[in-house]
Amino acid sequence: MPETRSAYPVWRTITTRWMDNDVYGHVNNVVYYSWFDTAVNAWLIEQGVLDIHGGSTIGLVIETQCNYFASLAFPQTVEAGIRVARLGNSSVRYEVGLFAQDEENAAAQGHFVHVYVDRQTRRPVPLPSALRAALEKLMVPV
Amino acid sequence: MPETRSAYPVWRTITTRWMDNDVYGHVNNVVYYSWFDTAVNAWLIEQGVLDIHGGSTIGLVIETQCNYFASLAFPQTVEAGIRVARLGNSSVRYEVGLFAQDEENAAAQGHFVHVYVDRQTRRPVPLPSALRAALEKLMVPV
Amino acid sequence: MPETRSAYPVWRTITTRWMDNDVYGHVNNVVYYSWFDTAVNAWLIEQGVLDIHGGSTIGLVIETQCNYFASLAFPQTVEAGIRVARLGNSSVRYEVGLFAQDEENAAAQGHFVHVYVDRQTRRPVPLPSALRAALEKLMVPV
Amino acid sequence: MPETRSAYPVWRTITTRWMDNDVYGHVNNVVYYSWFDTAVNAWLIEQGVLDIHGGSTIGLVIETQCNYFASLAFPQTVEAGIRVARLGNSSVRYEVGLFAQDEENAAAQGHFVHVYVDRQTRRPVPLPSALRAALEKLMVPV
Repeated sequence: MPETRSAYPVWRTITTRWMDNDVYGHVNNVVYYSWFDTAVNAWLIEQGVLDIHGGSTIGLVIETQCNYFASLAFPQTVEAGIRVARLGNSSVRYEVGLFAQDEENAAAQGHFVHVYVDRQTRRPVPLPSALRAALEKLMVPV
Repeated sequence: MPETRSAYPVWRTITTRWMDNDVYGHVNNVVYYSWFDTAVNAWLIEQGVLDIHGGSTIGLVIETQCNYFASLAFPQTVEAGIRVARLGNSSVRYEVGLFAQDEENAAAQGHFVHVYVDRQTRRPVPLPSALRAALEKLMVPV
Repeated sequence: MPETRSAYPVWRTITTRWMDNDVYGHVNNVVYYSWFDTAVNAWLIEQGVLDIHGGSTIGLVIETQCNYFASLAFPQTVEAGIRVARLGNSSVRYEVGLFAQDEENAAAQGHFVHVYVDRQTRRPVPLPSALRAALEKLMVPV
Repeated sequence: MPETRSAYPVWRTITTRWMDNDVYGHVNNVVYYSWFDTAVNAWLIEQGVLDIHGGSTIGLVIETQCNYFASLAFPQTVEAGIRVARLGNSSVRYEVGLFAQDEENAAAQGHFVHVYVDRQTRRPVPLPSALRAALEKLMVPV
């Protein structure tokens, strides 16, 4: 069932692109996942807790999932709500809802799981404390 | 747990692209889903049961999911194994395993669910019989 | 030489995506062209002169070109300036400049040429008068 | 004018993807450039003269261009012919022709210019001698 906007504490705006539409005239299902990555990582970078170029810790994706309820299409603008559903020692489950403007119900919603690893060894490491503190802001009370 | 090659009856070869690699030097998680679509739809078109331009029935994706076990990177070639796990009246669950060449274990595996709808009304329709017959070839005995 | 903002009469804002960055940490050169299409077609749709689903006339791209002066990177927001440099009987040369926010000089600039054709026959047709009127607004005095 | 296959000394095979097709049912013009990068860089990597992860020299794209003569569409397989048209002190002009299978004339052809720079300083450097030797194999006698 599609969630409503109140399920997400933080929001990002994403512009669609001509190429996002596939031959059936709507955004291809694959593109939604690029918006998941985009919404979460942009927020982490702006919070100052993700340095994609020099940081010693990087997030590797081990699982992704999405349900689609209503189509989106270029040139619509998309609003992405993000939250953290589980915060482990070295992993995080991010959940994202994608909404058309002025729509109360999600057009699609899903999640991805990041395991944070050392950039060199690619072995899991505990979440850096600044990252953990930022992620706590994304947690929604059950 | 990653599956092995014997879990998939039909195979497609996919070439990676420079752009598939993200800033961490491996194929971005989003790209895997473009390979799911590609492997299944190419096979359906070659079987003569999917006409993306003129067909009256089109497949809409309502759910996708993927688990990632090992990284892939350009310029590797990827082998996609496909199967049908569930064949309903108007919906199909496709499962796809992605393998590096000469690797016995999947680097990633996942699924997507197509609901087949009328191109104009976008209402579910029974699977055309030729499509159903083709899909039965993708079913794996439990 | 990079142009300045005054060279473009109409503007669109485009959000970058995580996937846009390639392994060298900057937006891949290919992505810039997806922004060309996006900026121009979104504007045409909003002007009511392009109906990508039902219109009888569609624009086919016959030539594209881009020069790159400075890198752009996710999560930057990009501002695209658009103009029409040549308006023929059935073809249009669009020119696009891509700017980082608060930058006066283009990070990249280029063009694409659309030939307008009948959707069915794919033969060139004269520009519809409403489209031509809209495009005249994008022309810059020499 | 489209070139023929004899204009290109080295070839790569590229598989199209479902997402490559845009709403008009043919490969979007942007995608062709991802094939340019892919064909050239894959060949360089296989020749052992490009190390995208650890090499001290990287190629930055400063110009790209493409002409389109005939459409391509998923699920076609594309054959990319590559050659070097100009080999400077620190820059290279690569030219690429894209052909449908069994077609003698290019569906599209274009070029991109790489300036080779130091990975850290991003300042131009002379082409490493191994890279230069490999590129000479791509030059076509005038």
